[in-house]
Amino acid sequence: MLKPSQRDRIEVILVSPRNPLNIGAAARAMANFGFAHLTVVAPFAPNWLEAKSAIGALELLQKAKSAEHLAEAVARCTLVLGTGTLTHRKPEQPVVSLPDLAPIVQSELARAGRIALVFGGEKHGLTREDLSHCNLLVEIPTDAHQPSMNLGQSVAVCLYELATRALAADEDATEKPASGSVRAAASGRLELLAGLIERTMATSDYSPPPMREANRRDVRLLLRRLALSEKDVRRMLGLFRRILWRIEH
Amino acid sequence: MLKPSQRDRIEVILVSPRNPLNIGAAARAMANFGFAHLTVVAPFAPNWLEAKSAIGALELLQKAKSAEHLAEAVARCTLVLGTGTLTHRKPEQPVVSLPDLAPIVQSELARAGRIALVFGGEKHGLTREDLSHCNLLVEIPTDAHQPSMNLGQSVAVCLYELATRALAADEDATEKPASGSVRAAASGRLELLAGLIERTMATSDYSPPPMREANRRDVRLLLRRLALSEKDVRRMLGLFRRILWRIEH
Repeated sequence: MLKPSQRDRIEVILVSPRNPLNIGAAARAMANFGFAHLTVVAPFAPNWLEAKSAIGALELLQKAKSAEHLAEAVARCTLVLGTGTLTHRKPEQPVVSLPDLAPIVQSELARAGRIALVFGGEKHGLTREDLSHCNLLVEIPTDAHQPSMNLGQSVAVCLYELATRALAADEDATEKPASGSVRAAASGRLELLAGLIERTMATSDYSPPPMREANRRDVRLLLRRLALSEKDVRRMLGLFRRILWRIEH
Repeated sequence: MLKPSQRDRIEVILVSPRNPLNIGAAARAMANFGFAHLTVVAPFAPNWLEAKSAIGALELLQKAKSAEHLAEAVARCTLVLGTGTLTHRKPEQPVVSLPDLAPIVQSELARAGRIALVFGGEKHGLTREDLSHCNLLVEIPTDAHQPSMNLGQSVAVCLYELATRALAADEDATEKPASGSVRAAASGRLELLAGLIERTMATSDYSPPPMREANRRDVRLLLRRLALSEKDVRRMLGLFRRILWRIEH
């Protein structure tokens, strides 16, 4: 089982769930496996209120946050894990099968990182735009004839795997204090840098307007592939601010 | 992943589920992980028909069987696994944590056994009577503050564990043909023997009537602890038939 302080650095994020029963089911699975931080992105307002105020709603659901956009929900996280199947999808980031996830989560927690586990809506899962915020795609190995899982059930299966295997071997390990130079950059910092690069592209007429959307996604994915430290990001932010200032003045 | 022929010897059994949505969710998790044999014990008739005939109901749900009693549902199985938490319960059989279940399932399948995974109803889980038909109790390691899982989610978590870990190491192993002497006795054969022993107890005035219920459960559990082969059972059936004949004539 994870140590409380480690569990405390794992967040569950549901993007645009429609069915309040599924929100409740996700919250229940979280409570079953001892996780506490739930954020719902762009919830359908009446269903969200219904789920939060349902009789018997768990405390963690009452305390759950909502966010307008996935970028905001994952801003503090250093490792963002999208979930889904590969059917109808050719992801642009590495894919890891859920039974192989434990060592990745272990090493991220050992270097004091913060992890988001992101689940898409019931109908189509995570969009391409959502996936551009993810470092890795986690695939639950399901049968080819019926690959798509129910939302509440896939949350339960992922959290079971994390709770029972991610830290089982490492329970008593002491955490390495993260020094400034190796501390991974949080997703919100990468998003700031991506915005600055995008503005530079626009200001320097690099991107024709029809390409901007695709370029934005590509830059976002590129920055996540680079595994930048917070120190790298600080340096690059300074550089691009300087470049922009020179172009604009 | 399990080989199809191995998956074919794993059955899912739901005892008296109330909510048709949960029956549907259990069926969906089965399809997700490639399992096909579902039996529902003592279903609440209108909900059972509703679940089976729901629009979009999976083929395996349409083909699912119902049974009046758990004994009938597990009759062909050589290893009956009850599921649940240990809260409010002191089981009389060995308990195994779900992450440790794989080697047990592997060895049972390797000797050509047939496995039942039994889930209790939403409200109280498996009763003491239900548990007396089980060889082992499988516990999903949940948080002490919220130990009880949703039915559909606990089916999903158990099947994920079996599908991804029970046979992963053994996928290409050829099956040992089960010779008559080591073939495990199926649950239905043990039940036949238990019934004969019970009749012998009654006929020989061993059990005062108020004790009969408890004695029946104890004999059932005892027979499951003994890990009898089919040959053992045949011999004991012969012996008790002879004893009964002598007492009754």
